[in-house]
Amino acid sequence: MVTLTTEEQDSLTAARDRIQLDLQTVLDQQLLPSPLKEAVHHAVMLGGKRIRPALTYATAIMHEPILNVAARRAAVAVELIHCYSLVHDDLPCMDDDELRRGQPTCHKVFGEATALLAGDVLQTMAFEVLNSNYFSQDIEKTPRDMAVSGQQSYVLAQAANRMVQGQILDLSAENKTISELDLETIHLNKTGALIQAAIGMGALSVGIEMRDSLYSQLIEFGGFLGLAYQVQDDILDVTASTEALGKTAGLDQRNQKATYPSIIGLDKATALAQDLHQRAFIALKSLPYSAKDIEPLEGIARFLLNREQ
Amino acid sequence: MVTLTTEEQDSLTAARDRIQLDLQTVLDQQLLPSPLKEAVHHAVMLGGKRIRPALTYATAIMHEPILNVAARRAAVAVELIHCYSLVHDDLPCMDDDELRRGQPTCHKVFGEATALLAGDVLQTMAFEVLNSNYFSQDIEKTPRDMAVSGQQSYVLAQAANRMVQGQILDLSAENKTISELDLETIHLNKTGALIQAAIGMGALSVGIEMRDSLYSQLIEFGGFLGLAYQVQDDILDVTASTEALGKTAGLDQRNQKATYPSIIGLDKATALAQDLHQRAFIALKSLPYSAKDIEPLEGIARFLLNREQ
Repeated sequence: MVTLTTEEQDSLTAARDRIQLDLQTVLDQQLLPSPLKEAVHHAVMLGGKRIRPALTYATAIMHEPILNVAARRAAVAVELIHCYSLVHDDLPCMDDDELRRGQPTCHKVFGEATALLAGDVLQTMAFEVLNSNYFSQDIEKTPRDMAVSGQQSYVLAQAANRMVQGQILDLSAENKTISELDLETIHLNKTGALIQAAIGMGALSVGIEMRDSLYSQLIEFGGFLGLAYQVQDDILDVTASTEALGKTAGLDQRNQKATYPSIIGLDKATALAQDLHQRAFIALKSLPYSAKDIEPLEGIARFLLNREQ
Repeated sequence: MVTLTTEEQDSLTAARDRIQLDLQTVLDQQLLPSPLKEAVHHAVMLGGKRIRPALTYATAIMHEPILNVAARRAAVAVELIHCYSLVHDDLPCMDDDELRRGQPTCHKVFGEATALLAGDVLQTMAFEVLNSNYFSQDIEKTPRDMAVSGQQSYVLAQAANRMVQGQILDLSAENKTISELDLETIHLNKTGALIQAAIGMGALSVGIEMRDSLYSQLIEFGGFLGLAYQVQDDILDVTASTEALGKTAGLDQRNQKATYPSIIGLDKATALAQDLHQRAFIALKSLPYSAKDIEPLEGIARFLLNREQ
């Protein structure tokens, strides 16, 4: 067990405060009719670890000390996509779950139709925010800003597409025996893609281009981290309590999901999670930045390694 | 009854051929796993009037005779958003419909989970295509191209957001007596917004800016057309057969939907549709373009006035 330094802990808390405020600002400006407004608020504002926004921020400030508005919009956008996926994932025709972030799921509170539409509008809002002028003092975006948000939209859309592909593969694998490689494909799509996009959009916000080798290195780090995150998730579903998780524990087993513990066993899964985290740290340390610059990204990786929910 | 000229008919057929080909190109390049691939194909390729893409094309070629790739991407994107909305709209928790475009609905063929995910990925794909390099000979987009697609993304996202708002208002109005004004709000959001976006994205593709008065005039035309379209839809639900519609006739009544015939009666609704079409024609003719230039847009408006499905 590696403990977080005070700086790492502060950086994570600051990221959480930032995204909470920015999400609230965006939702306040949305003139949604009831009960859509309440359902969206429920889906977005009631907790969550906010890992993806923290990754976007940490990537941007690694390169430029002051957090820019394109990174702030991207952080909101990636979290909205994540929230939409949770709402749709919990629906009766999908995982049929009743608990999320320690609260009743969206459809349990607002009904299926409203939850469906809340998920739909959250996805839309992500692209609206990304291409908007939110958080900026200027009335109009510059052409450069627009070019950045256009590229971020592309990256986010591709990741959201892969996320859905991961979900369909996951559904198809229920009640089946699949290989470890197939499971890796599911997880890299279902979870890894959006984590990589969070990092990629942060990089784009500070002018790193998709064709730069630095961009590829960051995406590689995101791949290890994303996979590590999901292996850990599989493990926690077995080892943690519903109370600690804030969502129903043991749900994977109930739904006959393919998971790392079910395929390679709990011990090997734990070793794999550690190994993936090590690879993520190595990828991070090979970046052309100082130890101080990579600290926020390192803090998130360490936090994920230690998490119990 | 006004008949379409041969030129108008040819222009509509050309638009339908163009979008069919472009949609097929996009779907062919998507590496979606089964059964997502088949569900997406089912939702997109099996018919449809393709009104929204035709509006995007017609707006662009009114200004520039050669159709540009940003308009072609926008046309695909708006049709994908439209298709996603139909798939989710037909789900059991929404309108619970079994027939669409003369075919069994997506969830009837592929099940609810796959239909839900197909709708989700269609929305994502819209923003992916818009910000991609599809249909272009160049390997990379120019900053100007990226700025255009960034603005188009914003317009499309706002419209898709309003569409969902319209749907929630529509659901809330079921089994209730609402005013004609409330119904207008529902329709302007549910249908009008996306029709306006189709036109707006066509305008952006040829360099017309959102702050230009020409842009506002085009959006005004789209508002009349969109509302006329939906009033006509309400009327056809009462007067046309399931066979002619390709979707279940009388469904609005079965679902106790608020419609123009139910609120103001069939005769007044018919007069209103005619009136809105006239206003659309007047808005069109006040644009600073020649009679020849506006012909394609006029043809679509006339086609909508005469449609029986």
